Amino acid sequence: MHIHIHNDPADGVPPITHAEWVAARPRLAAGPARLSLGSSAADYRAAAGEVEVLVGSPRGLRTLLPLDPARLKIVACTWAGLDLLAPFDWLPRGVLLLNASGVHGTKAGEYVLMALLMLANRMPVHVRNQQARTWHPLYGVSVSGRHVVIVGLGAIGGAAATRCRQLGMRVTGVRRSATAHPACERVVSTAELDAVLPAADYLVLATPLTAQTLDLVDRRRLSLLPAHAGVVNVGRGRTLDEEALCDLLETGRLGGAVIDVFRNEPLEPGHRAWSTPNLIVTPHMSSDDHTTENAVFLDLLIDNLNAWAAGRPMPNEFDTTSGTRARSA
Amino acid sequence: MHIHIHNDPADGVPPITHAEWVAARPRLAAGPARLSLGSSAADYRAAAGEVEVLVGSPRGLRTLLPLDPARLKIVACTWAGLDLLAPFDWLPRGVLLLNASGVHGTKAGEYVLMALLMLANRMPVHVRNQQARTWHPLYGVSVSGRHVVIVGLGAIGGAAATRCRQLGMRVTGVRRSATAHPACERVVSTAELDAVLPAADYLVLATPLTAQTLDLVDRRRLSLLPAHAGVVNVGRGRTLDEEALCDLLETGRLGGAVIDVFRNEPLEPGHRAWSTPNLIVTPHMSSDDHTTENAVFLDLLIDNLNAWAAGRPMPNEFDTTSGTRARSA
Repeated sequence: MHIHIHNDPADGVPPITHAEWVAARPRLAAGPARLSLGSSAADYRAAAGEVEVLVGSPRGLRTLLPLDPARLKIVACTWAGLDLLAPFDWLPRGVLLLNASGVHGTKAGEYVLMALLMLANRMPVHVRNQQARTWHPLYGVSVSGRHVVIVGLGAIGGAAATRCRQLGMRVTGVRRSATAHPACERVVSTAELDAVLPAADYLVLATPLTAQTLDLVDRRRLSLLPAHAGVVNVGRGRTLDEEALCDLLETGRLGGAVIDVFRNEPLEPGHRAWSTPNLIVTPHMSSDDHTTENAVFLDLLIDNLNAWAAGRPMPNEFDTTSGTRARSA
Repeated sequence: MHIHIHNDPADGVPPITHAEWVAARPRLAAGPARLSLGSSAADYRAAAGEVEVLVGSPRGLRTLLPLDPARLKIVACTWAGLDLLAPFDWLPRGVLLLNASGVHGTKAGEYVLMALLMLANRMPVHVRNQQARTWHPLYGVSVSGRHVVIVGLGAIGGAAATRCRQLGMRVTGVRRSATAHPACERVVSTAELDAVLPAADYLVLATPLTAQTLDLVDRRRLSLLPAHAGVVNVGRGRTLDEEALCDLLETGRLGGAVIDVFRNEPLEPGHRAWSTPNLIVTPHMSSDDHTTENAVFLDLLIDNLNAWAAGRPMPNEFDTTSGTRARSA
């Protein structure tokens, strides 16, 4: 098996190294594999005719198109959300596509928990008071017993739900079909979202960007939330109406928000979100822990390759029609 | 039994109400009790000769001194830390003193977890980048597997330890005696603090202010921490050398800090802490949830009164010599 890993310099992340591969490969059931590492389209071209498994970020893979279909069996992405690769007509017929759902759950679940605790502790106000050198006693609440609605129960939303339950929160999950989730007291389908928003203390968005999630949380839905509610987005910016969010925060019709993803990234210096009251902005960093994620990704890749070699479905196989994993947890 | 609750207006917290007492009192084993509520020394004087149990904040109780010892059996404080009442020579002989250790554990444990997650996510930098309207990709790490040293294992430190364990952190506790704690992998005595600091990713201070904790974390001990380490203080400001903390943060010899308590509160507008890099300041709000704490306090008070009526030791009995609870968990 020939695996080519494309480490795109524009990703700004530590490249996957030969040493990391050597540490991971003993778990590969199929036995020895040939590895090539590249950082350019030319590097890929040099190996392309032999490559059976191509690994890269969606951003990096776009620079390699068109792919050489000669021996290609699997394209494995290092990101969970593959919307940057849509539409998927570049994928040679019969080649399977994998995402990296699962690599980011631990880190992103922690970020969501942090965001909820920051909202409960009124941190958006405290950080501004600190800038103004003002000691203003202002108290928060415990999240225990409060109600969070989590839209999207993939690896990230599921990890967030687990963390919230550990802190005694009531968790309602929202996903395409209303199938149960072990960390959620209740799961409803996306069609029932409107019904659960008025009772939410917090709304967490952890969805991929698909035709179904584009503009899902629009002005009307945001207005269904109670005025004290907080909003967290770790999915994709185009799921949420940013202008409506800023309007509602400015008029006190929402309690606060912690937002990591935006419709256009990087967020331009003139964007109102930077200075909207009760809004914390972070630069799309919620889900990445560069100290561990290459090793976790290679483990996940090998899990999938072992399933494939055994003729079982690969857990991270991506359904290009729905824009999510074929077999969601 | 006559209970007088002094709600001091200067506390700036919601007063304990008659309705809250009515909701709590069915649990009082001794049967009917007479309640008086006051907000001034005059209110207390009017009832003082009959009062057996006096309830108030340390700040409020100071305004009532000297106490009338006629029938007084118990003074119950609504705060966990009673250093504002030291020295305790104002306490009439034979009168028992209670603190409110246990009321603040849930809220304060959540704050500590938030603080650690904010440090791991580099939030002190992100909030400054937001002020500057700068999108600067900067990534954090998961706290899972990292090592936190928690000094003080009372209700607050213990709750923090439990939260840290839930997130997969390694927890070393530090307290007067090295007795085990269920949420800590390891507990050492205060005398061994120096030995554990060099291996700490995070240092959390959750101690009362006593002769033993005054200036405990001085410049020398802060310098024993690794340069990437984060510091959190939810105990008392006088435990920590603030100037040394700011110096080490400014020179990059410490990674970050989230500080809720200061040597002099309110922190004056000219204090360097407001603008020290990688330092988040909050106004002594970590431990209070005003929506629940009166009810939780009254439950705790009744637990203690029931123990007293049954001739058992009261769990919150305060040892004025050590400056902590007589029977620490």
